[in-house]
Amino acid sequence: MNPKIQDYLHTNREAHLKELTEFLSIPSISALPEHKDDVRRAADWTAQALENIGMENVKVYETNGHPVVYGDWLKAEGKPTVLIYGHYDVQPVDPLHLWDSPPFQAEVRDEKLYARGASDDKGQTFMHLKAIQAVLETTGTLPVNFKFCIEGEEEIGSPNLPLFTEENKDLLAADVLVISDTGMIEKGKPTICYGLRGLCGLQIDVRGAKSDLHSGLYGGGVQNAIHALVDIVNSFHNENAEITVEGFYDKVLPLTDEEKEAYAALNFDEETVKQELSVSDLYGEKGYTYLERTWVRPTLEVNGIYGGFQGEGIKTVLPAEAHAKITCRLVPNQDPEEIVELLQKHIKAHTPPGVEVTTKLFDKGAPFLTPFDHPAIQAAGRAYEKVYEVPTSYTRGGGSIPIVAAFDQILNVPIVLMGFGLPTENFHAPNEHFHLENFDKGMLTLCHYWYELEKSI
Amino acid sequence: MNPKIQDYLHTNREAHLKELTEFLSIPSISALPEHKDDVRRAADWTAQALENIGMENVKVYETNGHPVVYGDWLKAEGKPTVLIYGHYDVQPVDPLHLWDSPPFQAEVRDEKLYARGASDDKGQTFMHLKAIQAVLETTGTLPVNFKFCIEGEEEIGSPNLPLFTEENKDLLAADVLVISDTGMIEKGKPTICYGLRGLCGLQIDVRGAKSDLHSGLYGGGVQNAIHALVDIVNSFHNENAEITVEGFYDKVLPLTDEEKEAYAALNFDEETVKQELSVSDLYGEKGYTYLERTWVRPTLEVNGIYGGFQGEGIKTVLPAEAHAKITCRLVPNQDPEEIVELLQKHIKAHTPPGVEVTTKLFDKGAPFLTPFDHPAIQAAGRAYEKVYEVPTSYTRGGGSIPIVAAFDQILNVPIVLMGFGLPTENFHAPNEHFHLENFDKGMLTLCHYWYELEKSI
Repeated sequence: MNPKIQDYLHTNREAHLKELTEFLSIPSISALPEHKDDVRRAADWTAQALENIGMENVKVYETNGHPVVYGDWLKAEGKPTVLIYGHYDVQPVDPLHLWDSPPFQAEVRDEKLYARGASDDKGQTFMHLKAIQAVLETTGTLPVNFKFCIEGEEEIGSPNLPLFTEENKDLLAADVLVISDTGMIEKGKPTICYGLRGLCGLQIDVRGAKSDLHSGLYGGGVQNAIHALVDIVNSFHNENAEITVEGFYDKVLPLTDEEKEAYAALNFDEETVKQELSVSDLYGEKGYTYLERTWVRPTLEVNGIYGGFQGEGIKTVLPAEAHAKITCRLVPNQDPEEIVELLQKHIKAHTPPGVEVTTKLFDKGAPFLTPFDHPAIQAAGRAYEKVYEVPTSYTRGGGSIPIVAAFDQILNVPIVLMGFGLPTENFHAPNEHFHLENFDKGMLTLCHYWYELEKSI
Repeated sequence: MNPKIQDYLHTNREAHLKELTEFLSIPSISALPEHKDDVRRAADWTAQALENIGMENVKVYETNGHPVVYGDWLKAEGKPTVLIYGHYDVQPVDPLHLWDSPPFQAEVRDEKLYARGASDDKGQTFMHLKAIQAVLETTGTLPVNFKFCIEGEEEIGSPNLPLFTEENKDLLAADVLVISDTGMIEKGKPTICYGLRGLCGLQIDVRGAKSDLHSGLYGGGVQNAIHALVDIVNSFHNENAEITVEGFYDKVLPLTDEEKEAYAALNFDEETVKQELSVSDLYGEKGYTYLERTWVRPTLEVNGIYGGFQGEGIKTVLPAEAHAKITCRLVPNQDPEEIVELLQKHIKAHTPPGVEVTTKLFDKGAPFLTPFDHPAIQAAGRAYEKVYEVPTSYTRGGGSIPIVAAFDQILNVPIVLMGFGLPTENFHAPNEHFHLENFDKGMLTLCHYWYELEKSI
């Protein structure tokens, strides 16, 4: 990589920070209707910034909610195309009095930039623009093609982006999708999250007699709705905390040896988790470590249960109804639709006599995985290592990022989550900030990444 | 029995009803402080009524609440002593507008006496007085000795009677305790309830992590408090609905062949219960009928369960705590203290890793049983049959009457529950009434009973 690129970033640091400060000054809170115009202003600002760095076909696309900003540069003929996703909307700022400086007046303290959106995600989106500008202005060209898709509804669950993506499949077609909206595992440890769990679930409603009964008069004679529910819920796991729903694990991708090594290399300390959560023991599926259980193994958790009397003391009632809410975290290649069917079949098979059981389905999300050894992932790892000079950590996430799953399904493209945030940077909370060390190193990493990608895919 | 006794009852019927109407006109609602003086008036009225029929040592005993009225007649030397328990207090009358006649102005309609307390329990208590008076005035003596203990707090749970009984053990000592405060199984079927279940229970509180956790980040890694609770609760029963707590059944008295026959003779219709409760199946401990399960077998019921998210839809939380309230209905000779200890031991043995479990104990009550073949029970059965001319039904009750258990434990006396009420008579509800057929036949039955008792015990 041309050493002038690094010089360019160094020379223009103050100008970049000034420009980012302007971006951060727009209170583009997508959740609050009174900020609708601000969200629009941030979209326009983003479009202008894309124009400024040399992107073409820049356009603010209308949706049923806040707009999507698009722009591209497609002059690297025969080279891969990178789609960059980010978002220009931010979280609300309440409670305002807990902020040490105004959330929309960015302030640098102790080499950290404080503002709402500094890290999530205006700061990280902005880095992509400036890294590309640095390469383009320094070398007169770019090693790969670029498309930008910057939305304004991520903080409210991206309600319109899946449809936009579906309707603009060709526009967004790419060889790799890069998202910088996650974090590094800890300071100084560059991290690539290459898989996320999906989600499906349902509510179980058990109905026994037509009303609650006197436990003296009827107790022992008729089914207790809570007993029936507990029977069903208990049947989901065996004594090894394995899920006993038939077929549940059938499509689960096994952990590869490389992945096992990568996780072991993280030197993850389970003791710290125990202390953090104040539990005497961690617990879960036999034969797997804590990280494996939370990253690569599916789960079935009861999120809520209720039935009968909940007040102080005792009421000797035999409850007529009982309810449980359960969700499964799914891993590649489990199919949420299929798992829900297996769950329903299991519930039916395990319903004891004397009660009626119905279920209500919850929203579903597919799991996501870009294979660990995918060239786009490995290229990102090498780019990080060039700048941070330590081995890249390869992780998976136990949660879901709905838009990642949607992109995965609609665009069918490898996705690289290159996050530069830190777990301590108060995402969604007062005093959100961004470590400028990662602002500087991150942009350099991105520049390296484009050149690595050119060679790899 | 001297046929003049029946004539006496017949001749004095109008006078008796007039006198009972006076008793029923006192609004002695023990639950309402504004009726304190009325409750006292009813105590004084009862004391005067005892004097009037020839009882001696009549006294209104003070307690920490409403008073207890005592009186005796102990001139049947060498004969058994009968203690009669009743109560002169009544339930509140709300909602007043649902009464077809004023609750404290007794009115006869269609051979039923309508008033609050007509059946529960002023009417039934009054019958004892008048039956004794009939025998005494007709024959000049009584075949057995009598003691009366009429309280004014039954409708608020008899808070002071156990202490009063404890402190007046000698005063109340008797060979048999007769209570007319229950009902006949149906019209025309005289019924003796010779056993009641006891009660004990506890709340199970499960605590996992220090707070609810994100089910994506932590799911599969740590114990879910609801899962742990469900494990424990599920461990209480096996697939035959038998209770698996070690030692739970050890002291349970088996059903005798005579009892089995007596229950079979009731021709109880399980289909009717299914329809009444709107359930497709009845359910319970294998090998026992519905009546056996609700009358003579102990139970363990979850009365309430709660933990995690209970709102609309889904919250992907891994709950930090979960709670269940359980109670056991106990049968002779189970000891509530011992059963609670067995439950706690069981819970401890079935607590899965990763959670802390604590318990809170609820109030306890012992089961009660006067053996089915006890001469005092069989004598009552014969007395009924002489008047009603059908076989007496022998039943047990699935619920508890706390004061019965207390008498049983403190006085250690056989207890005969000779109820003359009917299940349809609106106890505790608007339009409480009493069938005058049972008022007439009941008094005659009591007179026969005293003579049967004289011969039997």
